[in-house]
Amino acid sequence: MDKLTVIKIGGNIIDDEAKLSSFLKSFATISGATKIGDTIGIESKYVDGRRITDAATIDLVTMVYGGLVNKKIIAQLQAYACNAIGVTGVDGNLIPATKRPVKEIDYGFVGDVLSSQIATDSWELLLNNGMVPVVAPLTHDGQGQILNTNADTMAQEIAKALSSVYEVSLVYSFEKAGVLLDANDDSTVINKLNPKYYDQLKEEQKIFAGMIPKLDNAFAALNSGVKKVIIGNAEQLTELIAGTSGTTILND
Amino acid sequence: MDKLTVIKIGGNIIDDEAKLSSFLKSFATISGATKIGDTIGIESKYVDGRRITDAATIDLVTMVYGGLVNKKIIAQLQAYACNAIGVTGVDGNLIPATKRPVKEIDYGFVGDVLSSQIATDSWELLLNNGMVPVVAPLTHDGQGQILNTNADTMAQEIAKALSSVYEVSLVYSFEKAGVLLDANDDSTVINKLNPKYYDQLKEEQKIFAGMIPKLDNAFAALNSGVKKVIIGNAEQLTELIAGTSGTTILND
Repeated sequence: MDKLTVIKIGGNIIDDEAKLSSFLKSFATISGATKIGDTIGIESKYVDGRRITDAATIDLVTMVYGGLVNKKIIAQLQAYACNAIGVTGVDGNLIPATKRPVKEIDYGFVGDVLSSQIATDSWELLLNNGMVPVVAPLTHDGQGQILNTNADTMAQEIAKALSSVYEVSLVYSFEKAGVLLDANDDSTVINKLNPKYYDQLKEEQKIFAGMIPKLDNAFAALNSGVKKVIIGNAEQLTELIAGTSGTTILND
Repeated sequence: MDKLTVIKIGGNIIDDEAKLSSFLKSFATISGATKIGDTIGIESKYVDGRRITDAATIDLVTMVYGGLVNKKIIAQLQAYACNAIGVTGVDGNLIPATKRPVKEIDYGFVGDVLSSQIATDSWELLLNNGMVPVVAPLTHDGQGQILNTNADTMAQEIAKALSSVYEVSLVYSFEKAGVLLDANDDSTVINKLNPKYYDQLKEEQKIFAGMIPKLDNAFAALNSGVKKVIIGNAEQLTELIAGTSGTTILND
């Protein structure tokens, strides 16, 4: 199996021109990689503490993340001789989804990925021919409606689906050094994490509560075929992939 | 040689939701087609009667045409079971360009296509694998700068470049029935036009002056390998391609 790296980049890197540029420079040197941006930048509407995507917001997200940010990233990567192609989950039906059903809360135009319908053949077509997809976190319902989708989830779904054809590493890059024992001290990064150690840390209440959903998702990805999950600083991309920086999460 | 149809759609179709939807429905039934949108909708700045693309305008065009309009078209085509993929000339380096040199006028961020550098292999990769590229009229300078490019020119350059690998028909679709003898009477459409007849009509001053640059470009495309050029109403796409509507321009 060929190796594939799926990289999710956080919103505060995307919004910082110097950091983004340095990130893209490193990214361009990595082959067989897919990148997924974040949507945190758009001013969100909240109802009862939940983020809601109304009609104006989905248009705005499509403009900014599907258009401006995505194409600026592609132009920069092309300048670094990386043959990037900007896509959303709508393009080539790369990530089909369904509008989240309205229960207690109506999230609006939010898509839940239809995992089993991800077009792995379209992904392979691009990846096996030297194209590097850069994905804006948008999906569609197959009936003409564009949907907003959480970028962490997108990255995870792509990594899981492509695990049937590649040996996939999933990288969550953000502004922190990795999974930390002390949330305010970057030197306390945990280098390796497996289920047993994770359980122990949770029991000792040494994991920052905000990290728990991310880590639960990481282990879920491993259980769905992803080879490893790496969490760490976007400015140390090469080191993250080499395993010399950040937290590498493995099943054993 | 496989057949390929390159279709340019005018701005007043794109800006009219009902017309666009009907156009896309017809488009979805045509195989082996590439579509190029227009940029007329953006409010332009003029200096001495010339359209100028400043930094704010290129960002706006990238957002609206590279993002919102393009992805909405893709979502609709996907709903019609057409495996469309939205691209700009930046993506996959599909259309490299150079910033127009400043002479008497500084056009700003406007790209002149580098015809000989169009990546025909990337086009073939998409087209030969059932993907239908929908192109927003943006190019890039290879150094990270996105550039605004005339959609008529984009369509023509793509058609010319792909003539080396396909038998290409180039369709300019807009709100008129075709090339007219009387600009205000759609029933005066010229069904077939060749160089001899064109010269005769020009001599008799029977061609509307505004059509002359378009027709000169059409004949230039034919002289660069394009098989035929068709000009006509976007709402009659199937008939245009069948030659039963609009003006078909041929070299003989």
